[in-house]
Amino acid sequence: MSIVSLITLTTDFGNDSPYVAAMKGVILSLNPAVSLIDLSHDIPPQDVRHAAYFLAEAVPYFPAGCIHVIVIDPGVGTERRLLCAEVAGQRLLVPDNGCWTFLPGADKAKPVIHLTKPPFWRPTVSSTFHGRDILAPTAGHLSLGVPAADLGVPVSDWIRLQEPRPTRTANMLVGEVVFIDHFGNLITNIPGADYQALAGKGRIHVDRHEVHRQVRTYGEAQKGTLVALVSSFGRLEIAEVEGNARKRLNVGVGARVTVEAT
Amino acid sequence: MSIVSLITLTTDFGNDSPYVAAMKGVILSLNPAVSLIDLSHDIPPQDVRHAAYFLAEAVPYFPAGCIHVIVIDPGVGTERRLLCAEVAGQRLLVPDNGCWTFLPGADKAKPVIHLTKPPFWRPTVSSTFHGRDILAPTAGHLSLGVPAADLGVPVSDWIRLQEPRPTRTANMLVGEVVFIDHFGNLITNIPGADYQALAGKGRIHVDRHEVHRQVRTYGEAQKGTLVALVSSFGRLEIAEVEGNARKRLNVGVGARVTVEAT
Amino acid sequence: MSIVSLITLTTDFGNDSPYVAAMKGVILSLNPAVSLIDLSHDIPPQDVRHAAYFLAEAVPYFPAGCIHVIVIDPGVGTERRLLCAEVAGQRLLVPDNGCWTFLPGADKAKPVIHLTKPPFWRPTVSSTFHGRDILAPTAGHLSLGVPAADLGVPVSDWIRLQEPRPTRTANMLVGEVVFIDHFGNLITNIPGADYQALAGKGRIHVDRHEVHRQVRTYGEAQKGTLVALVSSFGRLEIAEVEGNARKRLNVGVGARVTVEAT
Repeated sequence: MSIVSLITLTTDFGNDSPYVAAMKGVILSLNPAVSLIDLSHDIPPQDVRHAAYFLAEAVPYFPAGCIHVIVIDPGVGTERRLLCAEVAGQRLLVPDNGCWTFLPGADKAKPVIHLTKPPFWRPTVSSTFHGRDILAPTAGHLSLGVPAADLGVPVSDWIRLQEPRPTRTANMLVGEVVFIDHFGNLITNIPGADYQALAGKGRIHVDRHEVHRQVRTYGEAQKGTLVALVSSFGRLEIAEVEGNARKRLNVGVGARVTVEAT
Repeated sequence: MSIVSLITLTTDFGNDSPYVAAMKGVILSLNPAVSLIDLSHDIPPQDVRHAAYFLAEAVPYFPAGCIHVIVIDPGVGTERRLLCAEVAGQRLLVPDNGCWTFLPGADKAKPVIHLTKPPFWRPTVSSTFHGRDILAPTAGHLSLGVPAADLGVPVSDWIRLQEPRPTRTANMLVGEVVFIDHFGNLITNIPGADYQALAGKGRIHVDRHEVHRQVRTYGEAQKGTLVALVSSFGRLEIAEVEGNARKRLNVGVGARVTVEAT
Repeated sequence: MSIVSLITLTTDFGNDSPYVAAMKGVILSLNPAVSLIDLSHDIPPQDVRHAAYFLAEAVPYFPAGCIHVIVIDPGVGTERRLLCAEVAGQRLLVPDNGCWTFLPGADKAKPVIHLTKPPFWRPTVSSTFHGRDILAPTAGHLSLGVPAADLGVPVSDWIRLQEPRPTRTANMLVGEVVFIDHFGNLITNIPGADYQALAGKGRIHVDRHEVHRQVRTYGEAQKGTLVALVSSFGRLEIAEVEGNARKRLNVGVGARVTVEAT
């Protein structure tokens, strides 16, 4: 393995607490030459599914060979395992809670190593902060050329998250909101192509609210209009133009979304 | 053009969504050696004027030759253009919505290139995320030495934002709040020198509230005091010492501010 | 002094305002090759004590030789001094308000230099933003090899913050909440070892609320359980599993915490 120069960080730690800073210090103490890239520290606390969608839309854009440290870890200190998983040339250091398994190619991840080798950890490991005590030092060592295989034992039974599947009948798609972005845009599990095949003159609902406008991009409708469009995720998205659809409709993840041909 | 090592990022994307991370990945995939510097991802959504004041107080401090990627872009996917604008040695990649035109020297920007060359973009361009699909890859290519002139065609009719001008009579200045910072300090459009020339024993009002104390810095007055001072922007600022003037006065951008000689 | 490649930044500036960005520009203008590491810009405004706990749990993890720029500075522009303090191989540039004095080894800091040499500052120094005008350029010069001793005059009478000490009788510890993290976990001033020696079958209260469960890590109890544990700070912590103890108990810093043997 060659030396890696990029390590990204994704956590639910926020920035008002010292947890992210401590991890950065641990990594840089092992490899001061590495470039640290913040992806997010604003994943909602313990929200493994939010992290899963986040990572699926972020990690694939990075160059092969990056190391991605991910700490959304409600099971810290319990029997849950920590993994080093290689997916499509990217290496992820991550709790075994499925948060990385929406990445394209995750089902073919190889190798996936259960981290079992304390020599690559901090000398004292706390019960509540494995990001600092195990994942950060492991990232440092990995970036210096330690092979993943040396970090522990290969496993194949890691936890996979399942995305809820939309159902479809001849003239109706039934899906749900799966991710809500910073703007309050509602991202659904309905593929953009399926929506486009059916929509046209169809009717779209979120919960009990009808969405009357279908657009290609936000700026095609007036400010304040509720619109349906294909998001940059390639999925059906419901948005309020220059507004916040989540607040306007008062809906959350799991809200029912239907597309009905008329 | 030589190789550039610094690219800054300013967006309204927040950090709970994968948009910033995706842009970082796209840039680093083209140029893994570049240093990415986050300026802000907390510009209020679609707030082009907030971005304009932010950039005017941030970009000029950077060394010449930096590339600044700016994505506050309510018009994404419409006819609005994307530009590469050179201002006082800095290069900005930015939607043509005026958000960069409060920068000192923006009226003399040259060249200003309308980005029209898809070879420098991602192969597929979405309708809603040109930050990822056009601006980020363009930044990557620019950082590798591609001349700005190769990216498109020169233009001179870009959108200019106008700052509201304060009015003055012999003994009165009438301005307004133009920017509210993280502390709730109210930054006005009244130049510090004009305020100082007139204030002295004058009276200052924000909306219907009188500001009784004039100070040089916050710590000159007790906690909780409402004060007027010259901000680090060089403008009249209204602040509450160790408090939040915005919340206390319940005012927003556009609130009337007067300085009256007595 | 050799050339330093890492400068960290800790402020209460948030990211919606241009203050952090301006400081980054000033530093990079002096030393474009330095790596800037954000520790936090979300320290609560003017909260010197929050910063003190934050820094004590973050800075020690960094490699020796780093420069740490810290701007939580309610006294900006008054007689308060700015310091360059060396603590256990780390160099801090910081207002003299005690926010760095919870760092292990701070009482043996040496040298501690009062910054008095304008040649290392920006040519014009504002009354309200010494982070940009003094600390950032000083960090740039320091990173290029300027010896700390050249920056001003040594002092020994810097302000020290005192941590409130828990009191103990034969069968009772009385402490308080000293820091609340991003998850709403309540960190106390009671050392983990003292808590563990006494707790066992003991009773724990925060304010008037009893904490019934003692655990080693969060995942040992059901979601929503109020638990006591030793935090990654090595102190007694009160948490709600996958919840927010601060909101649940409606307590803040200073809330009384007791551990009573029964």
